[in-house]
Amino acid sequence: MPDPIGFIGLGNLGLPIATNVLALGHPLRVYNRTPDKAAPLVARGATLVDAPSAAATRGGIVFSVVSDDAALEAVADDKLAAALGPGGVHVSVSTVLPATSRKLAEHHRRFGATFLAAPIFARPEAAAARTGMFCVSGNAEAKARVRPLLESLAKSVYDFGDDVGAANVVKLAGNFMLTAAIEIMAEAAALAENNGIPRARLLEMFTQTLFACPVFVNYGKRIVDADFDKVGFRLPLALKDMRLALQTANAAPTPMPVLGLLRDRYLAALANGREELDASALALGAAEDAGLEWFKPG
Amino acid sequence: MPDPIGFIGLGNLGLPIATNVLALGHPLRVYNRTPDKAAPLVARGATLVDAPSAAATRGGIVFSVVSDDAALEAVADDKLAAALGPGGVHVSVSTVLPATSRKLAEHHRRFGATFLAAPIFARPEAAAARTGMFCVSGNAEAKARVRPLLESLAKSVYDFGDDVGAANVVKLAGNFMLTAAIEIMAEAAALAENNGIPRARLLEMFTQTLFACPVFVNYGKRIVDADFDKVGFRLPLALKDMRLALQTANAAPTPMPVLGLLRDRYLAALANGREELDASALALGAAEDAGLEWFKPG
Repeated sequence: MPDPIGFIGLGNLGLPIATNVLALGHPLRVYNRTPDKAAPLVARGATLVDAPSAAATRGGIVFSVVSDDAALEAVADDKLAAALGPGGVHVSVSTVLPATSRKLAEHHRRFGATFLAAPIFARPEAAAARTGMFCVSGNAEAKARVRPLLESLAKSVYDFGDDVGAANVVKLAGNFMLTAAIEIMAEAAALAENNGIPRARLLEMFTQTLFACPVFVNYGKRIVDADFDKVGFRLPLALKDMRLALQTANAAPTPMPVLGLLRDRYLAALANGREELDASALALGAAEDAGLEWFKPG
Repeated sequence: MPDPIGFIGLGNLGLPIATNVLALGHPLRVYNRTPDKAAPLVARGATLVDAPSAAATRGGIVFSVVSDDAALEAVADDKLAAALGPGGVHVSVSTVLPATSRKLAEHHRRFGATFLAAPIFARPEAAAARTGMFCVSGNAEAKARVRPLLESLAKSVYDFGDDVGAANVVKLAGNFMLTAAIEIMAEAAALAENNGIPRARLLEMFTQTLFACPVFVNYGKRIVDADFDKVGFRLPLALKDMRLALQTANAAPTPMPVLGLLRDRYLAALANGREELDASALALGAAEDAGLEWFKPG
């Protein structure tokens, strides 16, 4: 019988991953702030618990997938670390600061438990289809233990070494790069349209050739279709990631001018009432600066 | 017997294209400012002429591949247009302003000839291997005539319509996007290294997954290897392209903040004596801002 697993956080990303853990045959103990989100899992045999620490078993494995650093620190408290105890492993999937992972790793260590950073590159559909990509860092023994599990939950697992914050840095760097891809395409598309060339013509060519990779193909289509009210990843969450990346760039001094620009694009989007749109609505900044109307709120 | 073709400009890009035209069996008349560049073509049967207009035949096809707008205007003079005459087609492969193509199209029309813009996305090796990508725009009849020829010189041909400047806009937008890709990777890589993660680890993962496309793979490798003194495309030429893109963005008002940043990165590179390096040395801006040394002049 597979090991029991604990799961904390059943949001857009947590729910499909937890569903896959359950499908692998692991007895699953789940916690979510709003318990009704757990209903589909409970219907398939998961146990709903009423505190994060109750999801953990002594020496076992617990996943957490929460929305930000404060939420992670709130669930990863003394009780959770004590419930995991010696040999227990906390697999933290959330996108947070590397500094937060380093602090929580030290905290868990005091209880004999191990905290690993394992952020994932995956939209919810990809997490469900197990085609995401985990980046993992932290204690080598704990990583070796959870690796087979991570491999069965994603397409690939990349190990970034012993510094537990490293995987968080990689995740923030990646989110920066993919957000920057949107800005670049939007600027190029605006230039094209102001010269009479439909953005679909421009972006279809580039995403079939020089830029034929998932990020450009997916976000290029978003920009062409301008379906920014179909929300995969909410705009304020993307702003949060740019802020975390800037904080990380600030801590280990690294000027990143494009990152600063992306943060400002998101601030402008919020200032203009776009908090309910998809993160790709960043593209509207370059379009509107250029006098183009790509999107009308429905 | 295939039509005779004229070819003006035998630089890094012109020479491999002209070589392929000759290999297709076309009698070739070539002109270059420094005539010794024509030697390998003459050895294979091409005729060297001593003026751009002497490369043209009445009603025939002439290619030009020169370094900038001024050089193009210098060769595309009254004599050349008159030598082409009614039915003649000038295929302009150079990266120039859309405004220059529009002006020269009008000029050629007065002599009964047609000027087409047909910039190519191709490094010299790709042009030689016929794996480049032509973007073409201008008069439909002339495009139909040269299309089979362009298709046999590249992997693909994309038609951007009747406005002769359109293909130039697309070329400048593409050069902007690929230069921006370098900046993005450099900023992400600098953030990683300042957090103890080798840039090779970061960029190899992304260019195998979310960014697995030619631009990111090729320039990602450049950044990892830091072989900026192996020159594929000279840095001042890339600065020229950013300037042309900015002029185009200025003409049809389109604010492009990332484009402005890239221009400034190249200006900084020139101010620091990097005119002999490859265009990808743009990456050194983000690295050095972050206190990192990726490259030492050999």
